[in-house]
Amino acid sequence: MSVPKKFSIGVDLGATTVKAGIVALNGTIPDQISADAKAKEGPRAVIQQISFVINELLGKSKISECIGIGIGAPGIISAIDGTVNHPPNFSEWIRVDVAKEIRKKFNIPVAIENDANCAAIAEARYGAGIEFKDFLFVIWGTGVGGGIIFNRKIYRGPKGGAGEIGHVSIDYNGRLCNCGNRGCIESYIGQKYLSHRTKEILLGSDRNSDENHLEKLVGGDFSKLEPAIISQAAEMGDPIAINVLEEAGDLLGCALASVMNVLDLDVAVIGGGISAAPAFVYEAIIKSLRARVLTSHKEHIRVIRAKLENTAGIVGAASLVM
Amino acid sequence: MSVPKKFSIGVDLGATTVKAGIVALNGTIPDQISADAKAKEGPRAVIQQISFVINELLGKSKISECIGIGIGAPGIISAIDGTVNHPPNFSEWIRVDVAKEIRKKFNIPVAIENDANCAAIAEARYGAGIEFKDFLFVIWGTGVGGGIIFNRKIYRGPKGGAGEIGHVSIDYNGRLCNCGNRGCIESYIGQKYLSHRTKEILLGSDRNSDENHLEKLVGGDFSKLEPAIISQAAEMGDPIAINVLEEAGDLLGCALASVMNVLDLDVAVIGGGISAAPAFVYEAIIKSLRARVLTSHKEHIRVIRAKLENTAGIVGAASLVM
Repeated sequence: MSVPKKFSIGVDLGATTVKAGIVALNGTIPDQISADAKAKEGPRAVIQQISFVINELLGKSKISECIGIGIGAPGIISAIDGTVNHPPNFSEWIRVDVAKEIRKKFNIPVAIENDANCAAIAEARYGAGIEFKDFLFVIWGTGVGGGIIFNRKIYRGPKGGAGEIGHVSIDYNGRLCNCGNRGCIESYIGQKYLSHRTKEILLGSDRNSDENHLEKLVGGDFSKLEPAIISQAAEMGDPIAINVLEEAGDLLGCALASVMNVLDLDVAVIGGGISAAPAFVYEAIIKSLRARVLTSHKEHIRVIRAKLENTAGIVGAASLVM
Repeated sequence: MSVPKKFSIGVDLGATTVKAGIVALNGTIPDQISADAKAKEGPRAVIQQISFVINELLGKSKISECIGIGIGAPGIISAIDGTVNHPPNFSEWIRVDVAKEIRKKFNIPVAIENDANCAAIAEARYGAGIEFKDFLFVIWGTGVGGGIIFNRKIYRGPKGGAGEIGHVSIDYNGRLCNCGNRGCIESYIGQKYLSHRTKEILLGSDRNSDENHLEKLVGGDFSKLEPAIISQAAEMGDPIAINVLEEAGDLLGCALASVMNVLDLDVAVIGGGISAAPAFVYEAIIKSLRARVLTSHKEHIRVIRAKLENTAGIVGAASLVM
């Protein structure tokens, strides 16, 4: 590994792992590291772990060449004071000024941003969004989240919570979501739901069909019905897998249509684990969007796959201080 | 009438009428006028009518004291070149640079903005939104529209089309909207739907009830079932009128919850004809919103009635050049 002349450090804090990387000005990551986030041990332990990964990276380079540290964290990052508020799955955590703590330890510039926003920024600067001034970034994985890129910058909203597209309701009378609302798109197409829905249809279907690639792929163990497997089965021609993913694309298109109408956007960039789904899922999203958005948007609709995958969080965080 | 020292002229262009007023810096309207918009006679006739009302107002005052002219127009006002695009119910109208035409005639500064955005700006500067830096403005009348106030300014979006909250879908499988989408909130709570729904329930109900104020108010002529009558009947205790309006408030709350989650907003200001509905409708909107928005918004939710009523368009347009 050769450390670039000038670099910044990007930290991607998750509830299980904290990942960090040395990020060059061109968005490449010559070195990265990860550690247990210790989210169940309280804020002090988490800050310790963040410091640890930063220290490891700085140990291999000259701190004088480090422009600063950017941190992506879950939860709402206050647009007013930069504190991290109520990140889900972090214990004893109400409101913590993580950036201040890290600044104290390393005495270099530290910036912090919501993790979905970091990924959106990374796609805007180095990824699939490079050619678009304005787009909606969607994270489609365990949950559904997002970030709004307006005029090549992230739109945080008044308090830093903008972009929560997973909690756009597509049915006022629909499924009960974890958030308490009904019909949130997350409760229809998040990973758990896709797995559950697939299992449900499989159990009610003719399971001896030749095209039942799903059951073969998981060796009959339905607890293994993860989106990656569903995508794989769909590519092999499994009709149930195709059906589940097409339906998910159609529903996502419905939620995105509402958001794109309100925000006057034409382009969606899809990241997160399920964004690896086959091309026909993107076609389903586009078809649904074209049928649903206002006339002024119809011919301009673009839905594209994110480019940076797992590294978007680190790169976006690092670019906060570039 | 006494014309203030410094003033601007606000023009509110609708498909039937063009209204204009002299607007003082404090938002008052010492003089106003209206004329047929001649929307069916093409852009040239419409511009003629706009010029006419401006001329009339300027004839009563010193043009040297006029700071400029602001115009509110339906349709999308291009954020790029200020042209008025496809205003609904205007004939032979594709894309017209109205501001340029008016500037040529009067040789003073002219600004133009979407009419819903004008009303939002007026409420932000002089109306119910004065105390809020950020809020969602909702026009609830024939259709449902809106404007987004972010940091005391209007958020236009990339192309000038932001704020189309009437076309947020609350049911992906729901009612077919004029726009082609399904489940748009406009198709549930716009004036025509409210009248239709009320009639439908009335026809299926026990029409001899003592509480049937609706039927008495319209003298049995169901074509007169307009929202103002429904509101009046509700205030008299008519259970059908109350039911229809409460349901509408609940559904509006569902659409607003999605929008407020995405935009990180806590406050909605409701204008338009139906905003005159009784207080219990606002309570229904708030109840629905509190049940549906993300936890970080719940305790901050405010839904309030707009203040400026019919003059919001003129005042907001005028304030574009202040």
